[in-house]
Amino acid sequence: MSLPLGVTLGDPAGVGAEVILKALAHARLRRVPVVVVGDVETLRETAKRLRLRCELIPLGEADVVAGALPPRLCPRSTDRPTVPVVATSRLGASARRPGKPSIAGGRAAYRYIEAAARLAQAKAIAGIVTAPINKAWVTRAGFPISGHTELLKDLTGARDVRMMLAGSRLRVVLVTMHLALAKVPPALNVRDIARTIVMAAAHLRRYHRLAEPRIAVAGLNPHAGEDGLFGREEERVIAPAIERARRAGVSASGPYPADSLFFQAVHGKFDAVIAMYHDQGLIPLKLLHFHDAVNVTLGLPIIRTSPDHGTAYDIAGKGKADAGSMIAAIALAHAMGRS
Amino acid sequence: MSLPLGVTLGDPAGVGAEVILKALAHARLRRVPVVVVGDVETLRETAKRLRLRCELIPLGEADVVAGALPPRLCPRSTDRPTVPVVATSRLGASARRPGKPSIAGGRAAYRYIEAAARLAQAKAIAGIVTAPINKAWVTRAGFPISGHTELLKDLTGARDVRMMLAGSRLRVVLVTMHLALAKVPPALNVRDIARTIVMAAAHLRRYHRLAEPRIAVAGLNPHAGEDGLFGREEERVIAPAIERARRAGVSASGPYPADSLFFQAVHGKFDAVIAMYHDQGLIPLKLLHFHDAVNVTLGLPIIRTSPDHGTAYDIAGKGKADAGSMIAAIALAHAMGRS
Repeated sequence: MSLPLGVTLGDPAGVGAEVILKALAHARLRRVPVVVVGDVETLRETAKRLRLRCELIPLGEADVVAGALPPRLCPRSTDRPTVPVVATSRLGASARRPGKPSIAGGRAAYRYIEAAARLAQAKAIAGIVTAPINKAWVTRAGFPISGHTELLKDLTGARDVRMMLAGSRLRVVLVTMHLALAKVPPALNVRDIARTIVMAAAHLRRYHRLAEPRIAVAGLNPHAGEDGLFGREEERVIAPAIERARRAGVSASGPYPADSLFFQAVHGKFDAVIAMYHDQGLIPLKLLHFHDAVNVTLGLPIIRTSPDHGTAYDIAGKGKADAGSMIAAIALAHAMGRS
Repeated sequence: MSLPLGVTLGDPAGVGAEVILKALAHARLRRVPVVVVGDVETLRETAKRLRLRCELIPLGEADVVAGALPPRLCPRSTDRPTVPVVATSRLGASARRPGKPSIAGGRAAYRYIEAAARLAQAKAIAGIVTAPINKAWVTRAGFPISGHTELLKDLTGARDVRMMLAGSRLRVVLVTMHLALAKVPPALNVRDIARTIVMAAAHLRRYHRLAEPRIAVAGLNPHAGEDGLFGREEERVIAPAIERARRAGVSASGPYPADSLFFQAVHGKFDAVIAMYHDQGLIPLKLLHFHDAVNVTLGLPIIRTSPDHGTAYDIAGKGKADAGSMIAAIALAHAMGRS
């Protein structure tokens, strides 16, 4: 039996429990072994409230490390999937209310990630899939973080990470992430762009078995600067970064005008697009994959994916959350683990 | 008979003649009256080289002003469409070579637009559809222009213009156009954004018969700034501009995170999206409408559309140019003229 994936519950007041239980009942994930890292009672209440059939099986972290997951714990072709749960500690009733985030909930969300990272580093799980957290509430609980990605970087001692967003039709990797647009042009530099290209190529080689991934690099300015007419970042930093990545053996090209590039990529010309800033990559990605985009962290020593949505407190507990992105995140992490 | 549209030939070394002749032979435009403003010989050579059947009928500008377009000049349901051509002057052979731009060609391209603007202002044509020009060659010919849109603004004495890009699934209107990305944040101001919103709404009311167009306004920063965490332009200029437009009676909302907004717009929630910068609007538009997006100028006293592609010197004369965008541009201008 292959190692299970660890799926963290995320913020207990968010839609995490709902999308996890829906995903684990989905036919596509029937054969994917999973352990949820979270609170049993939150999952039980969610299942009851939304009439999601499942059999919750509490486990200790040590059981997972010892490989004590009996085969029957993997969801099977039954309408009542078994869901093994590793609980770090019990959550009080006030922290389990849907749509009502709390400090205790923020603290728990942090502990789930920590526990999952421990399990991954102990090679007890094949990778981590994280349900959404809320940075503000985790920070209020005493753990100042800028996001899942940075937290996992610190927990695993990774040197440099990048965010890839992937759907079946398009993959984008971001050079800069959550940065005000005015700060993007001065933040760009040859080293970071070149590393992003190289990390994207390494990821596609390792996990998608592409011998020579074709990486397209977007320009920053309209028409990729049109020979310096509308900005010089293309000449100054992007083109030299592409050159550096090519010298490192990557089949990279560009900088391409961003407005026509994504059409080319979607129609098979490239395996991934390097975007200079958040919206440049996420506008086309979410347009095509609003309900099933997956966030993949590149550069970690472990596999990590997550659905591309937030805690959605406004619809938590109502049964309205779309599990498409969580299903895709688990399926992708599973495929990566087998590659 | 309704007034014809004036279609300018654009740069004679580009794909203009080819896409015009292909478009006028297309079933969808069979009943659309058109006069081409350009060079008869360039059209004749293009038709011959690419075996595009058509009957060219040279006319003087005065004929069109006098309304001397006999009904038979409208393309009919025949495989040999008649193409009335208003020639401003004869073009030498060296300026007619496909893919070889020249100063004479740049000058001619400018004259075609000038003549079309005269015809439009004399109410001899219902509107203008412009085939692509090359700014650099028009400028070399002694007419320094920053583009079609700005030129038509000057020729018609318009106060303020905006660029709308339209496809069947999405319409976007740009606040800033060809500006280096670093210059976008400081260029944004309440007045320009509010005017863009109001102009978009006025256009949709006037030409698309929407009584209360729903206008969505994109944020500038990731997550629309996430309450100031990633930039303050949303609070400082975008939200006040939306408020101003609402006071002017426009059903405007936002600022929305740009990465999820376009999905909502495409799925029917809005009639148009106001984008803060070129690629923000053109990335989603070209992803969905690579071959049939239409550029519409808002704010002119005349109707003006154009295909959303350039001169494409590299494929000029080869028969490879896709006429989809020109067909859509003529069809849209025609529909606007009848509204």
